[in-house]
Amino acid sequence: MNIAVDAMGGDRAPQVAVLGAVQAASELGIDITLVGDRETVVKELAYHSSTDHITVHHCDEAVQMDEPPLKAVRQKKDASIRVAFNLVKKGISDAVVSAGNSGATLASGVVILGRLDGVERPAIASVFPGEKGYVILIDVGANVDCRPTHLFQFGVMAHAFASSCLGMVNPSIGLLSIGEEGSKGNELVRLTRGLYEESPLNFIGNVEGRDIFSGDVEIIVCDGFVGNVALKLSEGMGEAVTRLLSTELKSSFFGRAALLFGRRSLDSFKRKLNYEEYGGAPLLGINGVGIICHGQSSPSAIKNAIRLAVHYVNKGLLENMRKQRFFLTDDL
Amino acid sequence: MNIAVDAMGGDRAPQVAVLGAVQAASELGIDITLVGDRETVVKELAYHSSTDHITVHHCDEAVQMDEPPLKAVRQKKDASIRVAFNLVKKGISDAVVSAGNSGATLASGVVILGRLDGVERPAIASVFPGEKGYVILIDVGANVDCRPTHLFQFGVMAHAFASSCLGMVNPSIGLLSIGEEGSKGNELVRLTRGLYEESPLNFIGNVEGRDIFSGDVEIIVCDGFVGNVALKLSEGMGEAVTRLLSTELKSSFFGRAALLFGRRSLDSFKRKLNYEEYGGAPLLGINGVGIICHGQSSPSAIKNAIRLAVHYVNKGLLENMRKQRFFLTDDL
Repeated sequence: MNIAVDAMGGDRAPQVAVLGAVQAASELGIDITLVGDRETVVKELAYHSSTDHITVHHCDEAVQMDEPPLKAVRQKKDASIRVAFNLVKKGISDAVVSAGNSGATLASGVVILGRLDGVERPAIASVFPGEKGYVILIDVGANVDCRPTHLFQFGVMAHAFASSCLGMVNPSIGLLSIGEEGSKGNELVRLTRGLYEESPLNFIGNVEGRDIFSGDVEIIVCDGFVGNVALKLSEGMGEAVTRLLSTELKSSFFGRAALLFGRRSLDSFKRKLNYEEYGGAPLLGINGVGIICHGQSSPSAIKNAIRLAVHYVNKGLLENMRKQRFFLTDDL
Repeated sequence: MNIAVDAMGGDRAPQVAVLGAVQAASELGIDITLVGDRETVVKELAYHSSTDHITVHHCDEAVQMDEPPLKAVRQKKDASIRVAFNLVKKGISDAVVSAGNSGATLASGVVILGRLDGVERPAIASVFPGEKGYVILIDVGANVDCRPTHLFQFGVMAHAFASSCLGMVNPSIGLLSIGEEGSKGNELVRLTRGLYEESPLNFIGNVEGRDIFSGDVEIIVCDGFVGNVALKLSEGMGEAVTRLLSTELKSSFFGRAALLFGRRSLDSFKRKLNYEEYGGAPLLGINGVGIICHGQSSPSAIKNAIRLAVHYVNKGLLENMRKQRFFLTDDL
């Protein structure tokens, strides 16, 4: 098993990516190829005593976090994220992990590996830790303007992902809307509903924003604009809630006593609200396994993402994805 | 000052609406007209010792929470929510407060009072308690499929509301999108941006879901589909976070000690996360003042909504709204 890690991607590259990779290689006993500027990466590796299982693959360029993704991927042929996907194409690596420009990761995945047969639009899935188990939100940002077929295919891809990688059996799928009745929602949702109803998928109808946390549904489908707003909102609220709790507790004597006693519980609470730690979002619909991490990922988030990548490869994500029917009828 | 309260609206009508109204009348010293089935409402009032300032206005019908709003409003001419808005039209009441079917409240407001001159689509604003002050999200559910002009007008209405009722001076306005760069966002956002840039409004560009909590922007504009998803998501996450915190603390001895010491701080924390308590969302763009409350509102939420209605009337919300320019050029 070899995972290609984009060493130049992320707000604190290459430090964080290198540290995450070193930890993952040591804990998981897998091979990792760090893709990036050799000199910079080797200098960073020098800080670590154990770099077994780690190799460096040099490239001359990197996509910056704020660069327009499509243009950058087209122009920078030797960008680390492109080179990482090329390692997968050549069979050298089994998956790509990147905390870099997520648009560039998506574009590179599509350009280098291509889409799976039948998939019109690859999508990014995000796995939320719901109260009753995982909840998958798809798409969280790859496709801002969607047609009903796209939203249908997102559900098919998430179904394949959930079945093969998360151990879900015939996972329930809901369409993110603003009311449970079928008549509610925008035009896109109303048109998509029929496709799901005709399909063999376990479609349970419309769901609402609150269901991302309730866990009453396992897969929630939406367009990438709505999904990205939802993802960013959850992250922002998680941070705000953590700050609010500290402020409330610090504002009184008894509160400060509670902080002292409850330190461990409160830290665990904060960690669970910190979605950045969960280790990245799988890019589904391309001819390979790719994981997109938050730009602000910590080393442990990178390590977790590498662990997930290994898990997805071992579970045969790609093989399961290839078996899916992405259209309801052959002549569509 | 007289506020018309829809006694038949809400999941626990008429108990909650009546109790909220009784509390508001006593605390604020204003007149309240409870609109609903006289016998039911009078029976409920009998539980309360002080019903000064409260009158009952009888009507025969009520819109149920799960009824299709437009059809119900069209067919039930004597529905409590229609009758309440009619009291405003006749000059008997100054504003309407309802925890009933929000679609029916919106439709009744538009049908009975009409839209303000120049307003194409009335919208529902939600006021979030951000860390640095209030953040207004508009629209949170009135309009699921929008054109750029609609999104522009939402900002104009929120500007008038924020200036007159929340004491904001030239409030900053952001377009909810999935990245701050102007090139990002879906087609609707990209087309709307130009309208704001040409306007005299204090437009600061695109903002992200996390900004609802950061307070770095005062007004956030989006279509009603995205806004409603965001609202429901915040509510759901608030509830989930509260449960998670309890679970974490109860799971250890020291956590239980922390619960004991921090009871007051933790209760304050939970209240701040409970958006339902904030007292309702103003319906903007109609010829009158209307407040839409959560169906699960508590009596204190109803009381708060009545307080807000009084405040908005006193601050001249409607007069300020009428002064706004809803189009950039006269020939639009």
